[in-house]
Amino acid sequence: MSQIYDRVAYIGLGLIASSMIHAGRRAGLQREIVGTARSAETRAIAREDGLCDIVTDTAAEAVKDADLVVLCVPVGAMEKVAAEIGPCLKPGCTVTDVGSVKRAVIAAVQPHLPEGVHFVPAHPLAGTEHSGPRSGFAELFDNRYTLVVPDAATDKEAVARLEAFWKGMGANVEFMDPDHHDLVLMVTSHAPHLIAYTMVGVADDLGRVTDSEVIKYSAAGFRDFTRIAASDPTMWRDVFLNNKDATMEILGRFIEELMSLQRAIRTGDGDQLHSYFTRTRAIRRGIIEAGQDTAAPDFGRGGGQTEGPSG
Amino acid sequence: MSQIYDRVAYIGLGLIASSMIHAGRRAGLQREIVGTARSAETRAIAREDGLCDIVTDTAAEAVKDADLVVLCVPVGAMEKVAAEIGPCLKPGCTVTDVGSVKRAVIAAVQPHLPEGVHFVPAHPLAGTEHSGPRSGFAELFDNRYTLVVPDAATDKEAVARLEAFWKGMGANVEFMDPDHHDLVLMVTSHAPHLIAYTMVGVADDLGRVTDSEVIKYSAAGFRDFTRIAASDPTMWRDVFLNNKDATMEILGRFIEELMSLQRAIRTGDGDQLHSYFTRTRAIRRGIIEAGQDTAAPDFGRGGGQTEGPSG
Repeated sequence: MSQIYDRVAYIGLGLIASSMIHAGRRAGLQREIVGTARSAETRAIAREDGLCDIVTDTAAEAVKDADLVVLCVPVGAMEKVAAEIGPCLKPGCTVTDVGSVKRAVIAAVQPHLPEGVHFVPAHPLAGTEHSGPRSGFAELFDNRYTLVVPDAATDKEAVARLEAFWKGMGANVEFMDPDHHDLVLMVTSHAPHLIAYTMVGVADDLGRVTDSEVIKYSAAGFRDFTRIAASDPTMWRDVFLNNKDATMEILGRFIEELMSLQRAIRTGDGDQLHSYFTRTRAIRRGIIEAGQDTAAPDFGRGGGQTEGPSG
Repeated sequence: MSQIYDRVAYIGLGLIASSMIHAGRRAGLQREIVGTARSAETRAIAREDGLCDIVTDTAAEAVKDADLVVLCVPVGAMEKVAAEIGPCLKPGCTVTDVGSVKRAVIAAVQPHLPEGVHFVPAHPLAGTEHSGPRSGFAELFDNRYTLVVPDAATDKEAVARLEAFWKGMGANVEFMDPDHHDLVLMVTSHAPHLIAYTMVGVADDLGRVTDSEVIKYSAAGFRDFTRIAASDPTMWRDVFLNNKDATMEILGRFIEELMSLQRAIRTGDGDQLHSYFTRTRAIRRGIIEAGQDTAAPDFGRGGGQTEGPSG
């Protein structure tokens, strides 16, 4: 894989940015990596580990002469960062982001970018429950999807280069409309996270079952929920606040559906439960066939060990 | 590990029974294994694979001269099986089960057991999303909890032998009151399963997001849900129908909690969301410290591969 950008600047150095840096180095996609983070501790770790070629104290410095600027901050921080870097961007450079919602990020970032700078929003569908500059690894994006959501007016060559950059990091790239992206992700990621957070919270509140019992006897179901519910709180707060309409729609549908199952249980309608539970098996099979998961059984231990940073 | 029982009979030959058979052989816990299943296909597979030393066509034949009878049928089938085997049980033998709910199983089974037969209900907290006589493996129970719920009058020696049997299969054994068991499991396993089923069903119903999109772009959150929601429909139907009160209580709490988070999102209360999401991280840490899961990140692929039957 040959070099695609000369200088790439990362604003924010968490799980996604550090994984992109490792994946980009693995494939030699850029000559030089510049990075910065709001927290002095994160910058110190990045310097200590040599995560970037250059670590700057401010975003304004980081983007100077960068051919690609990657915004890897929480969705709620995008506007402030865009306002800071806007005046310092190199004419003709490309700005992208990795936010989990796209409509709100476009509204926050686009107005601050000068004429001649290409904004190509993107969202890699990959992650773990860990965060921070030491949580990244080069394999995170391998064979995963990255959704790129440029508008019709966006410079085609800038879009093609970013597509090549993501493919170079191992990802499958697809294009999507921002609003549809926000709805699809609400279903496949955001709502499941909110629901997992809720279930873990309920378990925690329930006085008659102690935390230690919940912990000791957590069967696979609950363990999976806690893994999801351990994800970065700031990121998720911003996701829900910035994808409000889709969240409200899906939660409404979810509560409606849950109540009909609740009624089936109360009235003892075993046929409804059985046919419902049977139907949900089909999607699972589809996911395995789509190669996004493995058919190997997960009995709650060792998940990801084979492919995590330790492995 | 020395032999604990002479003859052990398994009624039902699914994931749990086949795993117990493999684990029992691994440790030499019994001289002879007898098994039967309602389905002729399952019995044929068991004979073909040599899963048991003897495969009988009926439960009544299977339990003859057995020192331990293990009921591994769905909770809803326990009463019928108990009524069939009751007259054929060897005096002084022990009957146990592996049902996910205990109060309802005790009510269904106990009345059909003759004087002098020891009923020691149990529940191994282990499983995968697969089922059937070929889904079992000897490691399933290693370092997992098996909850044993005898009543005060139960013969101590019979309880001690069953405890030794489960420890021989690799499990940690703890004792619990049946009602408390049903509440704890509702929180840690049953409710998460119902919620996962619901979310997968909602995704499936949602017209504007196609199944193929849901499948292609399923991020870790949704993938974990589909894995849970792929569990055996009959088993889970019976769990919910037989643990109705705890289900209703937890679902009520869950919906209440979910609606308060929904309101926080609608009103833009970021602080409430952030503190809520932060709190849920603590239970996750507790589970890792309790050794019931690994801190290795799970990015949605290879779960269990290292420890599944293939590995």
